[in-house]
Amino acid sequence: MGTRRTITGFSNPAVKALRALREKKHRKAAGKFLAEGLRLLTDARACGKLPEVLVMAERRDPHPLLTALEADVLTAGGEVIEASEDILAKITGKDNPQAVAGVFAEFDTSLDALDRSRAQIWLVAQALRDPGNLGTMLRTGDAVGAGGLILIDDCADPFSVEAVRASMGAVFTQQIAQARWEEFLPWLRSGPGQLVAASLRQAVDYRTAPYAAPCFLMVGNESRGLPEAYELACDLRVTMPMKGRADSLNAAVAGAVLAYEALAHLG
Amino acid sequence: MGTRRTITGFSNPAVKALRALREKKHRKAAGKFLAEGLRLLTDARACGKLPEVLVMAERRDPHPLLTALEADVLTAGGEVIEASEDILAKITGKDNPQAVAGVFAEFDTSLDALDRSRAQIWLVAQALRDPGNLGTMLRTGDAVGAGGLILIDDCADPFSVEAVRASMGAVFTQQIAQARWEEFLPWLRSGPGQLVAASLRQAVDYRTAPYAAPCFLMVGNESRGLPEAYELACDLRVTMPMKGRADSLNAAVAGAVLAYEALAHLG
Repeated sequence: MGTRRTITGFSNPAVKALRALREKKHRKAAGKFLAEGLRLLTDARACGKLPEVLVMAERRDPHPLLTALEADVLTAGGEVIEASEDILAKITGKDNPQAVAGVFAEFDTSLDALDRSRAQIWLVAQALRDPGNLGTMLRTGDAVGAGGLILIDDCADPFSVEAVRASMGAVFTQQIAQARWEEFLPWLRSGPGQLVAASLRQAVDYRTAPYAAPCFLMVGNESRGLPEAYELACDLRVTMPMKGRADSLNAAVAGAVLAYEALAHLG
Repeated sequence: MGTRRTITGFSNPAVKALRALREKKHRKAAGKFLAEGLRLLTDARACGKLPEVLVMAERRDPHPLLTALEADVLTAGGEVIEASEDILAKITGKDNPQAVAGVFAEFDTSLDALDRSRAQIWLVAQALRDPGNLGTMLRTGDAVGAGGLILIDDCADPFSVEAVRASMGAVFTQQIAQARWEEFLPWLRSGPGQLVAASLRQAVDYRTAPYAAPCFLMVGNESRGLPEAYELACDLRVTMPMKGRADSLNAAVAGAVLAYEALAHLG
């Protein structure tokens, strides 16, 4: 059985340790990340992922899902911490914190952990800087039945509070890998896989393009798009109509339009 | 000709007035909004929209687009203000502010200002709370050649700095209207228009749905989706595949997938 305790002081080291998980360097050092809110934690539980530590407001409305979560965490040997709303506000940095948060161990994000036979569609993002876009791509991946999201080069941290929140739980259902382009390309070519880029260069209409599974759909950085060399290394470059003044879509939007199109072709 | 001046003190009333435009109540009181960055301002200029006030860093790299913008603003009778980087940082609330910002008059956002014959696709958002989502919808609207974005009930402010930034200039190309549902529905029914909702209720497959122009594509609030009564008032309810655990997409993503599908049908 796990342990249960109540934190009453702001100076308790646990408060500082939890607060630190909002920063990437501390997440990496601890190998842990935070997910906030009962809905996210319930999604995680439904995926068989339990927090190592569950932090709850002392004063809270009773909720059967929270009671079940609490019991599961304790059964799994985890820790349940109760704290005042003020202390929760300090941990989350918000005036009105969610009444519950969980600390999870970060997952293995090496390419070798990916099983490409698991799905027909995979999303790939290169130098994606916005954690909200990253989380939205995870959410879209879940919706289209993708296997996961591969993050190329320097992307936002998929375990940031913002990315986890925007993923709406998909951080627990989608596989996530992080790699440099120089690692990714040989890995991709070591097995079956069609690499597809949204592109304006020698591209074919995205509606009639010959998508083939496993299909890796790649979008580029929010400001610069994909490097030309990356586009040229793709098996297929597809273009979406741009009827207005702008020449690009939001990265998460481009990925989603492409993913739904590929889904319609690949089933 | 307009005027040109240099602000040297933090206590200058213009600094406070500019800073205040980051808050909605002050934007509404002044009827003005801020757009930051040379790219946004150049987009605006290309759409024939010039800022009433152009604020620039005293020390800046010369740029032909900025020189042209400056000349146009002065010719149009506007004001050019130069300020130190410190003062710009105070106005924008950022450590590394963009070297240029513009103050624009807010546009007329009444339904009566919309010309529905102008486009085949219109986007509609209900109670959309996230300014980034709102800006992304404007950007998508520009990309699919939509006429504009109609904001129903209590939405984020389309003139917030975040929405303007996320729109990537589309705030200057898309028409924007704000209305209560009780005003919108009679307006819609007073002319041609198919109202379409992304929905799970008695919905048809979004790929084969009978879209008809002018087509008004509606998405709902980020957490709650559309109220049932609003969905039932639609001419068409369409559903997108949801293959994973989640039962919804990000609102801006749902709007984009739907908008690109409608574009493929309506041309």
